[in-house]
Amino acid sequence: MTDERFYPPINFASLDAHASAFETARVVVLPVPYDSTVTARAGTRDGPQAIIEASADMELYDVGVGLEPYRHGIHTMPELAPHTGSPEAMIDRIEEVVGELLDAGKFVVTLGGEHTVAVGAVRAHAKRTPGLSVLAFDAHSDLRDSYLDSHYNHACTLRRAHEVAPVTQVGLRSASAEDAALIRDERLGFYSPSALRDAGAQAVVERLSDDVYITIDLDCFDPSEMAAVGTPEPGGLHWDEVSALLTAVNRTKRVVGFDLTELSPSLGPRSCAQLAAKLAYRLIGLALGPVE
Amino acid sequence: MTDERFYPPINFASLDAHASAFETARVVVLPVPYDSTVTARAGTRDGPQAIIEASADMELYDVGVGLEPYRHGIHTMPELAPHTGSPEAMIDRIEEVVGELLDAGKFVVTLGGEHTVAVGAVRAHAKRTPGLSVLAFDAHSDLRDSYLDSHYNHACTLRRAHEVAPVTQVGLRSASAEDAALIRDERLGFYSPSALRDAGAQAVVERLSDDVYITIDLDCFDPSEMAAVGTPEPGGLHWDEVSALLTAVNRTKRVVGFDLTELSPSLGPRSCAQLAAKLAYRLIGLALGPVE
Amino acid sequence: MTDERFYPPINFASLDAHASAFETARVVVLPVPYDSTVTARAGTRDGPQAIIEASADMELYDVGVGLEPYRHGIHTMPELAPHTGSPEAMIDRIEEVVGELLDAGKFVVTLGGEHTVAVGAVRAHAKRTPGLSVLAFDAHSDLRDSYLDSHYNHACTLRRAHEVAPVTQVGLRSASAEDAALIRDERLGFYSPSALRDAGAQAVVERLSDDVYITIDLDCFDPSEMAAVGTPEPGGLHWDEVSALLTAVNRTKRVVGFDLTELSPSLGPRSCAQLAAKLAYRLIGLALGPVE
Amino acid sequence: MTDERFYPPINFASLDAHASAFETARVVVLPVPYDSTVTARAGTRDGPQAIIEASADMELYDVGVGLEPYRHGIHTMPELAPHTGSPEAMIDRIEEVVGELLDAGKFVVTLGGEHTVAVGAVRAHAKRTPGLSVLAFDAHSDLRDSYLDSHYNHACTLRRAHEVAPVTQVGLRSASAEDAALIRDERLGFYSPSALRDAGAQAVVERLSDDVYITIDLDCFDPSEMAAVGTPEPGGLHWDEVSALLTAVNRTKRVVGFDLTELSPSLGPRSCAQLAAKLAYRLIGLALGPVE
Amino acid sequence: MTDERFYPPINFASLDAHASAFETARVVVLPVPYDSTVTARAGTRDGPQAIIEASADMELYDVGVGLEPYRHGIHTMPELAPHTGSPEAMIDRIEEVVGELLDAGKFVVTLGGEHTVAVGAVRAHAKRTPGLSVLAFDAHSDLRDSYLDSHYNHACTLRRAHEVAPVTQVGLRSASAEDAALIRDERLGFYSPSALRDAGAQAVVERLSDDVYITIDLDCFDPSEMAAVGTPEPGGLHWDEVSALLTAVNRTKRVVGFDLTELSPSLGPRSCAQLAAKLAYRLIGLALGPVE
Amino acid sequence: MTDERFYPPINFASLDAHASAFETARVVVLPVPYDSTVTARAGTRDGPQAIIEASADMELYDVGVGLEPYRHGIHTMPELAPHTGSPEAMIDRIEEVVGELLDAGKFVVTLGGEHTVAVGAVRAHAKRTPGLSVLAFDAHSDLRDSYLDSHYNHACTLRRAHEVAPVTQVGLRSASAEDAALIRDERLGFYSPSALRDAGAQAVVERLSDDVYITIDLDCFDPSEMAAVGTPEPGGLHWDEVSALLTAVNRTKRVVGFDLTELSPSLGPRSCAQLAAKLAYRLIGLALGPVE
Repeated sequence: MTDERFYPPINFASLDAHASAFETARVVVLPVPYDSTVTARAGTRDGPQAIIEASADMELYDVGVGLEPYRHGIHTMPELAPHTGSPEAMIDRIEEVVGELLDAGKFVVTLGGEHTVAVGAVRAHAKRTPGLSVLAFDAHSDLRDSYLDSHYNHACTLRRAHEVAPVTQVGLRSASAEDAALIRDERLGFYSPSALRDAGAQAVVERLSDDVYITIDLDCFDPSEMAAVGTPEPGGLHWDEVSALLTAVNRTKRVVGFDLTELSPSLGPRSCAQLAAKLAYRLIGLALGPVE
Repeated sequence: MTDERFYPPINFASLDAHASAFETARVVVLPVPYDSTVTARAGTRDGPQAIIEASADMELYDVGVGLEPYRHGIHTMPELAPHTGSPEAMIDRIEEVVGELLDAGKFVVTLGGEHTVAVGAVRAHAKRTPGLSVLAFDAHSDLRDSYLDSHYNHACTLRRAHEVAPVTQVGLRSASAEDAALIRDERLGFYSPSALRDAGAQAVVERLSDDVYITIDLDCFDPSEMAAVGTPEPGGLHWDEVSALLTAVNRTKRVVGFDLTELSPSLGPRSCAQLAAKLAYRLIGLALGPVE
Repeated sequence: MTDERFYPPINFASLDAHASAFETARVVVLPVPYDSTVTARAGTRDGPQAIIEASADMELYDVGVGLEPYRHGIHTMPELAPHTGSPEAMIDRIEEVVGELLDAGKFVVTLGGEHTVAVGAVRAHAKRTPGLSVLAFDAHSDLRDSYLDSHYNHACTLRRAHEVAPVTQVGLRSASAEDAALIRDERLGFYSPSALRDAGAQAVVERLSDDVYITIDLDCFDPSEMAAVGTPEPGGLHWDEVSALLTAVNRTKRVVGFDLTELSPSLGPRSCAQLAAKLAYRLIGLALGPVE
Repeated sequence: MTDERFYPPINFASLDAHASAFETARVVVLPVPYDSTVTARAGTRDGPQAIIEASADMELYDVGVGLEPYRHGIHTMPELAPHTGSPEAMIDRIEEVVGELLDAGKFVVTLGGEHTVAVGAVRAHAKRTPGLSVLAFDAHSDLRDSYLDSHYNHACTLRRAHEVAPVTQVGLRSASAEDAALIRDERLGFYSPSALRDAGAQAVVERLSDDVYITIDLDCFDPSEMAAVGTPEPGGLHWDEVSALLTAVNRTKRVVGFDLTELSPSLGPRSCAQLAAKLAYRLIGLALGPVE
Repeated sequence: MTDERFYPPINFASLDAHASAFETARVVVLPVPYDSTVTARAGTRDGPQAIIEASADMELYDVGVGLEPYRHGIHTMPELAPHTGSPEAMIDRIEEVVGELLDAGKFVVTLGGEHTVAVGAVRAHAKRTPGLSVLAFDAHSDLRDSYLDSHYNHACTLRRAHEVAPVTQVGLRSASAEDAALIRDERLGFYSPSALRDAGAQAVVERLSDDVYITIDLDCFDPSEMAAVGTPEPGGLHWDEVSALLTAVNRTKRVVGFDLTELSPSLGPRSCAQLAAKLAYRLIGLALGPVE
Repeated sequence: MTDERFYPPINFASLDAHASAFETARVVVLPVPYDSTVTARAGTRDGPQAIIEASADMELYDVGVGLEPYRHGIHTMPELAPHTGSPEAMIDRIEEVVGELLDAGKFVVTLGGEHTVAVGAVRAHAKRTPGLSVLAFDAHSDLRDSYLDSHYNHACTLRRAHEVAPVTQVGLRSASAEDAALIRDERLGFYSPSALRDAGAQAVVERLSDDVYITIDLDCFDPSEMAAVGTPEPGGLHWDEVSALLTAVNRTKRVVGFDLTELSPSLGPRSCAQLAAKLAYRLIGLALGPVE
């Protein structure tokens, strides 16, 4: 029984003990406060906590989709500790932990940290879901094979992901000349915001296989809505567009998991964490639908 | 005679003694730095001063409406002191002071502070204007009967207002399951941004009676334009939309007073106070029109 | 068994499940994020969380006293929800909850929130400890009987406390003329920093009874070390002085509980939360000594 | 030969010694950290450095135009020192230095500082380019002949510019009654954002002569994208609109130089400097096209 | 009669109409938000307002000196507008206005703005007080004859002051080689903090004539207590030291006026404005003593 | 010849081309913006640039030691790029680069970045200076053999240093129980601030060998003077104490190089970078003395 004199404990969506118990929760939120390879501005390590704190201000009913996603049960893990030996070792740890959660039958929401953490999450999902495809929201192409002496630098995230599952990307507005050539030559499905608007959400959906993993680098958004990222790029996606695309994807595909990364809270107003929390909550609702 | 070597004193629109004298002013700005019941982030007590300071940077000519609203005379009151005995006592004080100003023939602009201050202002206007209706700009439904042990919590604002004058709301994108059911069951005129875009401004105007009080919780705006609020919600209204709706309302209705609340200056860039100041000035111009 | 791949959960001192279990913990930390009556700058509601977060960066061994205070067990409660009906109702709630914890045999550490929360904590302790005296650290005299229409305004804290247990105060450098006269006329033991330096810690200790409750308004510190308070006053106490006085008190008196209030994190650098966390941890160590 | 163990030196676009050498560079970036006459909030003196630092995070390939503008060579000058004798003397210095660079055959990009610095740059270009016209991006009309006792106050910038080359302006949403009358009476080409949207970019282009100097006060942008300016005005231009207009201008006109002013970094998130850097880089690419 | 439902208007010490009326006030506070020649970080233009706002949090009784200085009456002028023609013209304006106030029999407290504003104030006082000497608190020697092409740059302040009245300085810890040589060669009374501690306050007092003007650049303080200045220097003076020296000076000399400059509020915590307000209030009390 | 119309380029102490040329400079400043293993708050990667920028505000004459240290010539290197493969690889790179500079006859000043970078610098110096000892300024013992899966975590810095040269430490006020036991058992020369005050600077000097490397973690300072560090600890050293100890060391020992680390600029006011810059400049002056 809840003691009304107290606030609920700190967890995603500020849920009571019942709704957030690991055993019965369909969803597990995994905070990964890791930002070792970021080269511009640091601070994504504070992202997971900021998102979780912001989630306490949400109504549990999502008026945008007409659902109460928390009814699936959402458990929030303690923060994954960084392996400071090397980025590679940290990616391995993430893959291992996400894999254990998947094997326990959970729907895993990974909160970064830098975008690199997605590599571990994608690998864990790809290993367990044959034919998986990846939908990436990002402002950058991130297709470098190696950067600053590492294959696991955040600038290589989509290259690493693409090695285990085909990547479709939206939000592109920054790419090296080499990345741009690669996209052109290999006809990769990388969409700038205007390309997305021209092609329509359905064109993106059709590039995906039945089972989809979604990786969201929050810099896909326009900096007006999401300034709290290390390398903001003008001319990005807007909330309504992202929300509409996620709705379209979930209409015909099965989303098996997702991550939300690169929130660097001190670089923008608190509304950024709020957006991130609401985005995660909405995507849980869209992916899992109403409780039967 | 003005001494050009000095800036004007600090008041709304930075007016000289002549244009800001109480006796001759048609408009009175009432700052209410009260934020006792806010549960998320504090700071709306700093809102009125921030708006007044920002108003010094406006041109006195509003190029958007082609008027100089200050010619009606705008007097700025000293800040209303908080009654820290209880929120209810504070609401009573606001109703009392606003009422005195109305009885003195003034057009009252109340600057919050938390949205709760609107309850006092609405009551004072409703008591003096039979058939009054309320147009509310807000991201939240705020229809709870009681919250955190008080009927005067900021989450109950529109419920309290609705008790004395029918409320039409625009900007909705957050509601509890109970509030959402209430809106649906009682067919309340609560519009999300997309519902507003679909229905058009005129549909909203038609729900209003001849005399309208406008209450603006600044979180109605999209957080990209208004991050300086305690509970920002993505997907909000834009300046041009709000400005257009206000223009439409004033075309056929009589706006008898308004409030502007929930600016929490330290949570966003200074441009937020600027927007709030300009919004208040524009609404004065729209409501009172050119000086005859 | 602890999974080394994860950080400990969020609680005071970042303790594992064993060291932070309610049942076995000798110490209970009670966060009270309440700041309803503060008249200057808001934000103390964010104090408890900031202190708890900062406490994760402490070593569990306190090199200054040569102890590991956490070995007594420290449980962190969820945040006490504000009663927004009135300050008086909130004080009652605090007294009630602290009383329940005391009756359960706990040593209670109350983290504010505004200084007013101390009134509830002092009352709960005084009711259970005959002959209790209070040692207050504060920059202000806080002896007003009523302020801004309330007897429970933060400017009345020490007046309310003094009604249930005699108060000795240190750190004074701001008082109304009336408060100053009261102190002089009633020969209250209120010490400015220089008076404390002149008299010596022992003189303060001798004013106290055997059982002492300590209430700390963090503005007792010099603003150079503690800028994150609403009404900083230059010329305050320094860490070494406060630490030395606390050591002296604990040498001959029994400290039965304490509170730490008025941290408003956004008003100063993060080092302020760090100081507060370390102060609380040290005082736990001093009050309870080594585990037998 | 570059030592890969080191980052490139600090200059615009973070170019190596070869690409940034003065002798071979087609483009020279001139930082002018001057903000002496700004009357609202200070801080534009920090603008040039913020833009240059932000430029290090850009890819050298601009995916939006499909070019690598740096291949023209871009040299960054040391910061121009302020002449604190008078604004007039400083404008003279800017005209002198820009003139010397033009005479050396360079394409000059002046980074303010307050918008006043544009007066020196415009004069230097107008003197060397008969028939020059000016395209100004600005939220304000800035047509006062004198302000606060100076003809070189930032509120007089476009008046001073207009004296040496006809000015077409876009982004207008703030003007004094006198400025508005002047625009109306003299049929000046000053476009509010909605007027620009109605008329179309081509209408603006047609007002320009063959040789165009572009002066950009960053407050032309909507504050949601550019909060870091001293006098933000709601309802401004968006990145895609500005980018499209610049593209249209360069399609048929020769842009002979430009400035970018009024970034006051501490007033908004870092994404503002990022936008400014990318805008400058894009405009270099548009003006100079591919390297032959 | 005061309406208790409202806060007092915004003025120094937050005084009611009676205590702040110009006619009866012995003291006039003159805010000069001017920072045109500062070369490092801008922002002292926001200093006067920050000090005035902070002064509202002071008790009107100064417990440190046992007085209520406001009983002399303190009137706050509107802000002096900047003359943006040249620094010299602005200094002339300050001298003119301060002179008018002195001729009206007022005790003038000038709030900067940059330290340069002191030149105008010193000149006005020196012209009316034969034999005046100046006591300067400053971290820097500020003895350059000219800097960045101006004789009125803030780096020349004490040189300009010394030309009209002999300057004794305390707090020195930064000087050019030339300034250091000048101090040594001309045996100027410039004291570093440690020199002041060695010599004692009385040695400084003895260098002064009977009538003393005090000019305070807030960077005289240690940055731990006063970070909100453009060029902080470690190893500065502490509150108790400054307070003690001011007390010593007023014991045997007549202080005829003073200024307080260089507060740049956004560069440090709000406690800095609090210190400045309290310092001004204390110095008023010390200079004028109890009301007879 | 210098063009007086421009500021000098950005380098340590803002020196002209002559005084900062690599070939003739006795001193080389090496910025290492690396913060990969920091576990609390990130941001030390911004430290080197902040220190270099702050150094532009220093007078070139250090009035505290009566010298112009820049006359030895001070060259500032471009920033060392992070090796994101692993911390170990980065330490190797630092050792390599510092070694090359030492072999070129330079006095190397390494600016971190996290304290870990000192390991590379110490190794390079120890390899070239038989009998070297290390004087460490730090709040923490940093003697862990491994932390978060790495031997090169910042919590292991002094353990790694101690392996190649005996370490004497001052400023200690945080240690794990294990570290504290190690210090006690091995009688390591680790001094808390009060132990240093009791023993006197000379006692510390006597523990050192003739050739000394100095490593400074800026958290040795009291947070009142240095809030801009990730893990501030109350009760630290003051500027005058650190300055005095450095003077004492240089009186009888030869300082062969030093580093300055852990400045995380956004965590405190700008005065922190100012202190760091002045400390580096003073230590250069003390180590190299007057130019012969």
